[in-house]
Amino acid sequence: MEQIDEHQCFGGWQRRYRHASKTCHCAMTFALYLPPQAETVRVPVVYWLSGLTCNDENFVNKAGAQRVAAELGIAIVAPDTSPRGEDVANDEAYDLGQGAGFYVNATESPWATHYQMYDYVVQELPELLAEQFADTLDLSREGIAGHSMGGHGALMIGLRNPDRFAAISAFSAICAPIESPWGQKAFAAYLGQDKQHWREYDTSVLLSDTRDGAALPPILLEQGLADGFLAEQLHPQKLEEAAESVGASVEVRRREGYDHSYFFIASFIEDHLRFLARHMGA
Amino acid sequence: MEQIDEHQCFGGWQRRYRHASKTCHCAMTFALYLPPQAETVRVPVVYWLSGLTCNDENFVNKAGAQRVAAELGIAIVAPDTSPRGEDVANDEAYDLGQGAGFYVNATESPWATHYQMYDYVVQELPELLAEQFADTLDLSREGIAGHSMGGHGALMIGLRNPDRFAAISAFSAICAPIESPWGQKAFAAYLGQDKQHWREYDTSVLLSDTRDGAALPPILLEQGLADGFLAEQLHPQKLEEAAESVGASVEVRRREGYDHSYFFIASFIEDHLRFLARHMGA
Repeated sequence: MEQIDEHQCFGGWQRRYRHASKTCHCAMTFALYLPPQAETVRVPVVYWLSGLTCNDENFVNKAGAQRVAAELGIAIVAPDTSPRGEDVANDEAYDLGQGAGFYVNATESPWATHYQMYDYVVQELPELLAEQFADTLDLSREGIAGHSMGGHGALMIGLRNPDRFAAISAFSAICAPIESPWGQKAFAAYLGQDKQHWREYDTSVLLSDTRDGAALPPILLEQGLADGFLAEQLHPQKLEEAAESVGASVEVRRREGYDHSYFFIASFIEDHLRFLARHMGA
Repeated sequence: MEQIDEHQCFGGWQRRYRHASKTCHCAMTFALYLPPQAETVRVPVVYWLSGLTCNDENFVNKAGAQRVAAELGIAIVAPDTSPRGEDVANDEAYDLGQGAGFYVNATESPWATHYQMYDYVVQELPELLAEQFADTLDLSREGIAGHSMGGHGALMIGLRNPDRFAAISAFSAICAPIESPWGQKAFAAYLGQDKQHWREYDTSVLLSDTRDGAALPPILLEQGLADGFLAEQLHPQKLEEAAESVGASVEVRRREGYDHSYFFIASFIEDHLRFLARHMGA
């Protein structure tokens, strides 16, 4: 693993790393914010999953999260949104291929070779962090968060690994990808035509199929009502309905006037980090 | 004037406008953050001048200033750093031409036609704001701030217009452009070889030549000590020496470990906006 960038920020360090991924079979880049507390104690970790067209830098540059993370003493890991490189399959569209991994393990050609983002985020990256930052990060205290496609990723990964993640935060999330044009296109490409396989990666289905909703991590979802993708792509009401049917803790906050942008995320990231920190014991 | 973008942000509005500039003889773009208070009262205005290679968007996306501006009830105007367009003279180098206007009125060919950034920032833009936002902005209460080349701009413009600006904030500023390779290159191109003309735009010279330093706006300068441009380009000690010689109020804060980036600005922008607000009566 190679450190490729670092900046002091709010008394801590905003860093960027590159490593050879054995899961995605390519070089992967991720960002890590270490709060000042990490110099003396092991700090809990929030994973931030970004949306379509993003890489590991968007959240780091635009969300203003470091200020709050420095106060609360939490690290933030922001992986890339897909495998990358000349040898990695791609598509001209912004919503498929590089920058659009959808946090699934692809089974279909030409995607399956590299597009193993579920395993990368859930297994390889945490193992790498545990190995490289044993004295700095406390990986027994994890939270997960994300935006849009990354909100889908955070919800889906959090619900599939309820013993791992203390809480789940999402902004403008694709809450029912099976019913969203973005999700349908990506799942058909990465997972094939058998929609039975899609259900493993659909938050609303996963939630509906849960036996004990009360045992799941609590979810906080922030949704702007001026979000141009809301009606067709995001379906937060599906998440609410599924949560209610199984007794899971989901709070959806609808915000008049806010759109899908990082200006929305920046406006409410403090609330979400405090929510995650409270449940992680930070 | 045309509004080309808007996002709700911390209860206020982050907007972007384009207008035909009679000073720069081209279309100019600027950003405006209106805090929530602007819906009911006229709010004071901070101008933010960005550095080399930037446009009106860098500060807006990366500094996290809207949160503090929303709390304090101040508007922030971020102009572009130069004239732009196919018809506007340019240079392949990052430190001359488009993105590198240095906030001067160029006198030399081919720059003089469009590169009138001093007059644009000091006269045309405030007049436009006064006309378009008469019920929203209180242009009798102005502060000015900037980073690197824009720190030079904020200091130089603030010192040349001491009755206009209540206070001046700068990050990583080029404090003595006449002694900086960046400044020498730009001033030679825009202002010609006669260095006598350069002195009108050199903060340290302007300050040294002041009769009554105590009548100048107070200055707060933030400087990272891991800034790779510090030794050769920035010269904060020249500003301090000049301030001391004339009894001007200059506080220079040197920060161990911080570099020239927006991660540095984001870390300390709250202090600077509070400093400006205090002096503007916000």
